[in-house]
Amino acid sequence: MSESQGHAEPERIEAFVNRIGEIGRDRRGGWSRLAFTKEERDAHDVFAESARDLGLSVRADAIGNTFATLRGDENDRPMYMSGSHLDSVPNGGNFDGVAGVATALEVGRILSLSKTFAGEYCAVAFTAEESARFGAPCIGSRVAIGEFTAETLRALRDQEGTSLHDAAADLGLRPDDVDAEVWPTGFVELFLELHIEQGAVLDSRGRRLGLVDAIGGSTRLELSFPGTAAHSGATPMSLRRDALVAASEFVIEVERQAARHPTAVATVGRLDVEPGSLTTVPGFVRLSLDTRDIDSDRQRDLAEDLLDAAWRIAGRRGITVSASLISDQSPVTLHRLVREDLARTAESLAVPFAVLPSGATHDTAHIAKRAPAGMLFVPSRDGISHAPGEWSDVADIARGADVIARTILHTDAQIRAAGAHVTVER
Amino acid sequence: MSESQGHAEPERIEAFVNRIGEIGRDRRGGWSRLAFTKEERDAHDVFAESARDLGLSVRADAIGNTFATLRGDENDRPMYMSGSHLDSVPNGGNFDGVAGVATALEVGRILSLSKTFAGEYCAVAFTAEESARFGAPCIGSRVAIGEFTAETLRALRDQEGTSLHDAAADLGLRPDDVDAEVWPTGFVELFLELHIEQGAVLDSRGRRLGLVDAIGGSTRLELSFPGTAAHSGATPMSLRRDALVAASEFVIEVERQAARHPTAVATVGRLDVEPGSLTTVPGFVRLSLDTRDIDSDRQRDLAEDLLDAAWRIAGRRGITVSASLISDQSPVTLHRLVREDLARTAESLAVPFAVLPSGATHDTAHIAKRAPAGMLFVPSRDGISHAPGEWSDVADIARGADVIARTILHTDAQIRAAGAHVTVER
Repeated sequence: MSESQGHAEPERIEAFVNRIGEIGRDRRGGWSRLAFTKEERDAHDVFAESARDLGLSVRADAIGNTFATLRGDENDRPMYMSGSHLDSVPNGGNFDGVAGVATALEVGRILSLSKTFAGEYCAVAFTAEESARFGAPCIGSRVAIGEFTAETLRALRDQEGTSLHDAAADLGLRPDDVDAEVWPTGFVELFLELHIEQGAVLDSRGRRLGLVDAIGGSTRLELSFPGTAAHSGATPMSLRRDALVAASEFVIEVERQAARHPTAVATVGRLDVEPGSLTTVPGFVRLSLDTRDIDSDRQRDLAEDLLDAAWRIAGRRGITVSASLISDQSPVTLHRLVREDLARTAESLAVPFAVLPSGATHDTAHIAKRAPAGMLFVPSRDGISHAPGEWSDVADIARGADVIARTILHTDAQIRAAGAHVTVER
Repeated sequence: MSESQGHAEPERIEAFVNRIGEIGRDRRGGWSRLAFTKEERDAHDVFAESARDLGLSVRADAIGNTFATLRGDENDRPMYMSGSHLDSVPNGGNFDGVAGVATALEVGRILSLSKTFAGEYCAVAFTAEESARFGAPCIGSRVAIGEFTAETLRALRDQEGTSLHDAAADLGLRPDDVDAEVWPTGFVELFLELHIEQGAVLDSRGRRLGLVDAIGGSTRLELSFPGTAAHSGATPMSLRRDALVAASEFVIEVERQAARHPTAVATVGRLDVEPGSLTTVPGFVRLSLDTRDIDSDRQRDLAEDLLDAAWRIAGRRGITVSASLISDQSPVTLHRLVREDLARTAESLAVPFAVLPSGATHDTAHIAKRAPAGMLFVPSRDGISHAPGEWSDVADIARGADVIARTILHTDAQIRAAGAHVTVER
């Protein structure tokens, strides 16, 4: 690894973040670039344009993952990949995902200028990492590795009942063709993603970089509480079957049970009341439950205990509960050798880092099932994320990009020294 | 009063209810004819057409109240009025309001055929009785009596920020002209409204008619709980300021405090979570609180106690609360002489009735401030209202229409016997 290699430039990262930030401004102050909307596609177009300006070749796959490749036409070279996503939650921030795509572009620029790099490199923007719309996260990366098929895309639906298949087709994507494009084994030599932490660990400890050792899983359910809608003036308290009061007891129970384990979290993030009228006792509540832990048993036990609690709470009020599983994903431990490489590089660049797990899931959790993968965090100011106040320092992102570029250069040099590129199990 | 007078025909009432039921069908199974929408205007058009078929003259005022008059051009006659409203809550039933307008048309038909009736009669469909959209109920009747002015209409806004003034103007109404059309003193000799009970008292006691003695008041507030939106995977339970958990504690406290008084009710009917994403800790909750009682002090004390509780609950979580008063309306006791006349008529027709208060508010509560007014209830099956399952028997409605028609005929005969029409204080 040569110290004469170029460095990532914070100004370039900032310029890219700002250009993406022009898309999907929400009048509530943040950004809404939901999965499979024009806004998400517009952001991918900006990525494609920025990549072409760097001399990279751009192509998109059937589900809209966008790949920007350096030397992509030379098939015998080992392929290194970095990237993240450009969609957001409703009224979220502009760093979640965007920081990692900006990083992937900077890494591409550094590698394209490198006199020693002999591999192929691909900067990727995955489609639909957030699960806000279709309940399932990391759609683009899961399609890429073949975990989600054309059939899955027809089955997943948003709250309006639109299937993921139709939403994708309406945008000109080719959801029927995804099964033919699954990455072959050994397609990627090494995958590295930079992401904002979305928590306050790094910020509170004054570390500029986080090295992720494990990505937490999540079990997600949708619960319905059907009560009886009735007039709010004419229905005595004793005759009510108020769906919202039952759901409120459940929300409190979720907090109470999750707080028992230090690494467990559980959240009711969505709650819709019907009919939602000032003068009507709520007749129906539908809500989402998201339980997570880095311990897969505890994550699932918590979800089950909470389902039991929902039945108990609703039963006392003469209300039934129906629940459906939205998704269930196990925690993933990231590749030990990749973690060691990243740690060595960070040390050599004198970047103070901390090793920590990721509570949030990421595309890396899926890519890691098919390729050696690693993940870096940059600090989130005050730990705020999925909200307009989300903010990270572009200097931190640039430092992370340097670590990724140098780790790729180092790996590439090792492979060249070995005389052949040894795929997957290094 | 002559027993040779015609009777209300259930088939005609059913036909009108069904025609209105073609407007505003909600895909969730009920009806949505919200205030100041095309659906509400379409329903008023059906009313106008039905009234013209009976030979009544139709006109609308500046806010869209529709009046169908028998002998309206002869100014010296005492004017009797009956009516209700045609708008609904979101996904409500098709009897709330509609039953009373159907009744008013049948009463018009009976009076137009009467050989003895010498007065003027007006069937009215008031605009915007429900408060679902603009928070304030009984907009049409309050404009008619001058309680709501053009200025009020500019100040009231729906959740999207549209003012009532603009919503009305967009439909071709004349909200700037309302102040010139306020009813003069003595405009109405007697006002009688039939309405569905919206509760289960009559149904459970097997009474076919309810005679309302008092209409409960309501104090309505909008409360906001601003927490901190954060990532549901990356934010430990201990670092959260979850707006929904705070709001849920409040919802439970509302039920607990209201249940202490047998006549008090309190309801959180609307609750909106922001950003409303499966993977985001709720950062903001806005909800409605509706407290009611037939005792005005208790109604307001309850609202105040609940506000205190909201502060206490949110304060424990580092969250503030902001509250704004949407409306505050005192209970109204209906005119004793009118109640006696209605009771006598019901007895003479051998209709078994019960005397009961109305928990829900009605246009009659406002008209009663300007004219002698009375109100009849017909049973609601299982007490269901403001929901798709709302249902009342047209035979009961026809019996109520007979009581109203005969009470008007009796009052008119008394006035003629006295040789002059004595306004208001009979």
